[in-house]
Amino acid sequence: MKFIKTPVKGMLDMLPSDMRLREHVLSMIKKSYGAYGFMQIETPIVEHIENLTSKQGGDNEKLIFKVMKRGADLQRAIDKGTGEYADNGLRYDLTVPLARYYACNRDKLPTPFKALQMGNVYRADNPQKGRFRQFTQCDIDILGDGSSLAEIELITATAAMLTQIFAEINISRFTIHLNDRQILSAVALAAGFAQEEIGSVLISLDKFDKIGLDGIQQELLENGYDAQVVEKYLAVYRAVKEGITIEEFCAGISEEILPGKVIENLSEILGCVRPMLADGVKIVFDPTLVRGMGYYTGPIFEITMDDYNFSIAGGGRYDKMIGKFSGQDVAAAGFSIGFERIITILKDHMQGSYKLENATAFLIDKRVSSQRKTEIIARAMELRRQGMVATVLPMAKNVGHQIELLEAEGFTGFEKVYE
Amino acid sequence: MKFIKTPVKGMLDMLPSDMRLREHVLSMIKKSYGAYGFMQIETPIVEHIENLTSKQGGDNEKLIFKVMKRGADLQRAIDKGTGEYADNGLRYDLTVPLARYYACNRDKLPTPFKALQMGNVYRADNPQKGRFRQFTQCDIDILGDGSSLAEIELITATAAMLTQIFAEINISRFTIHLNDRQILSAVALAAGFAQEEIGSVLISLDKFDKIGLDGIQQELLENGYDAQVVEKYLAVYRAVKEGITIEEFCAGISEEILPGKVIENLSEILGCVRPMLADGVKIVFDPTLVRGMGYYTGPIFEITMDDYNFSIAGGGRYDKMIGKFSGQDVAAAGFSIGFERIITILKDHMQGSYKLENATAFLIDKRVSSQRKTEIIARAMELRRQGMVATVLPMAKNVGHQIELLEAEGFTGFEKVYE
Repeated sequence: MKFIKTPVKGMLDMLPSDMRLREHVLSMIKKSYGAYGFMQIETPIVEHIENLTSKQGGDNEKLIFKVMKRGADLQRAIDKGTGEYADNGLRYDLTVPLARYYACNRDKLPTPFKALQMGNVYRADNPQKGRFRQFTQCDIDILGDGSSLAEIELITATAAMLTQIFAEINISRFTIHLNDRQILSAVALAAGFAQEEIGSVLISLDKFDKIGLDGIQQELLENGYDAQVVEKYLAVYRAVKEGITIEEFCAGISEEILPGKVIENLSEILGCVRPMLADGVKIVFDPTLVRGMGYYTGPIFEITMDDYNFSIAGGGRYDKMIGKFSGQDVAAAGFSIGFERIITILKDHMQGSYKLENATAFLIDKRVSSQRKTEIIARAMELRRQGMVATVLPMAKNVGHQIELLEAEGFTGFEKVYE
Repeated sequence: MKFIKTPVKGMLDMLPSDMRLREHVLSMIKKSYGAYGFMQIETPIVEHIENLTSKQGGDNEKLIFKVMKRGADLQRAIDKGTGEYADNGLRYDLTVPLARYYACNRDKLPTPFKALQMGNVYRADNPQKGRFRQFTQCDIDILGDGSSLAEIELITATAAMLTQIFAEINISRFTIHLNDRQILSAVALAAGFAQEEIGSVLISLDKFDKIGLDGIQQELLENGYDAQVVEKYLAVYRAVKEGITIEEFCAGISEEILPGKVIENLSEILGCVRPMLADGVKIVFDPTLVRGMGYYTGPIFEITMDDYNFSIAGGGRYDKMIGKFSGQDVAAAGFSIGFERIITILKDHMQGSYKLENATAFLIDKRVSSQRKTEIIARAMELRRQGMVATVLPMAKNVGHQIELLEAEGFTGFEKVYE
């Protein structure tokens, strides 16, 4: 018999200190979003292979863990020799299952519906530092709300949640970046790019943080775009000054290419969110924010940590996606929080591991009588009733080492009982 | 494109009311067991196929959802034509992964280690009422404690937890049934059965609740056992009177077949647990308790609800199991709680669904100005700060229906904002 002690590649065993930290953060997320009326839902981890391979998942579809057919179904597939051995797969995100869930259950749900999902997703990616094959995602989505209220609620709720979590390690400076896919498209169209070129142009613009406007110019030229068009396009971004307003930035674009209501809508989001933010948190119009996923259709947003310059949450409006799955368009906007990244940052900033509090261990020598044991157990019960943690354990031969390991978990009270 | 709206067969989408109830119960379980020093851990849902098919899982091994190899590994398997397409599988219980986890991580954990696991397991069983292909298991285990303290802590903690959960629906009468595998074996040996017959004899005795002693007698005779031996065996159980003590029951068995320390150990568990129990909860020695799983080696126990006569939790000592996996014996005892059954009972007893509390919805007409929206959002923020739930939604065309669906989730405050 071959027994393998280590977990499956790229997936982690969670030690008690890991779990205490994760549970603490998950419960803050639940509570914080819960106060905004987001309702927790859950879909199975196993999803129909048809739904996972419907071309909505982008590159993630290449990373599916497939679940094999069973019994007669599997035998038929083998006999046919078509290689179609899987009928299910493990979900690679929470958005595809959400689309299925909403298509299946929408008549039982309020409209609009504010969903909170926290759960594991699976990607057969090459594991690297901070990237795993099983990891927790945390998404909020508002389905059935085409108005700016959806973005306002998503952003204020997420900003409040992050502020609260990071206050524990004294990090309080965040920037919310806001842009709109329709503005991104309009700028490209106004410069002279064709509609079908926009996707490729935005892939280049998305590299702004890494290669700057000069790098983008070079890449666009290498990709064979007209030098004049590229020049005109980048001039718009070169003219951007810190604190530029949406109206200023869009002033040169005609109503035909960019309807005024897109600008009004984005301004309203910015204006309504700004007064709700805690000290240290700001919201800015960021004309170079692109966000990778192709399915966004309207406002897009991202939260970065000022002192680290990386993104901790991102999202946007995706009004066309659920319809592609279910055949019925549903206005939708969502925000996805980098849960594993939050955990990594908290761990890096903590002094030691996340420990138990108010915990006492009674260590019982084997010579102790039943009656005395009962007394000790009753005392432990009393501590538990008072809200403390108490454990009753047999004393190990090496009691010093036993106490050390218990201290590492957070136990501070020890009572050795010898008779 | 074929899109499937319903979840995968035998797995459930959780509606918000389902999630509220499940989260409520999970958090009571965490808190209750946490007070006893049980520490939450987690293993990946995906496990090595070798570990899942190591013959420790009994019939569950026939029900594995297998996860396919990927890339070159899969191609090699197909080319070879051996049919070995899977390298992983979804865990069918929490015990096999716990054995792997402990083998892998024991030097980072206190000794003894008190583990709490709550997570989904997967079985490709035929779905039926209350039985699913993805379901939540909730196990506590104490690893590395060969003394009666392990059973005492497992049983008192579980009794306290169940008492607390069911108090909410005014159910308070439970019976803890206690027996020992070594006593069961000793009675069979003393009657004249051979060592290798014990397993089969206990399968018959396990049917006591369904077919009674006469039914068991008939079954044993049909199975070809000697009539005199069967008669002698059942006479022991026929002589059992209510309230029989462990010592009385075992009085006729020689020290050679049943060492006195087995009896002392079981009496100590019973004696130490009894004074810790809440009103309405009793612990009894139950000589006909068998518990199906073959891996138990010592004390076994089960909790039944007096008014329903079914089991809600069961467990026992399994000192030989971890060694079979990892090659190194570890004293172990565990208690598994029927989480899905608890949820079913709570649902059956509740008036309506599990609802939000203190929840207010602001319903905003589309004519409302940005400035007024900001005022409303600020008021919602204030309610949230006070610990209440507040949501800001666009008013639906059919606002009556919108309110109805929100009321179904527990919203009680509504404010319609027209301008």
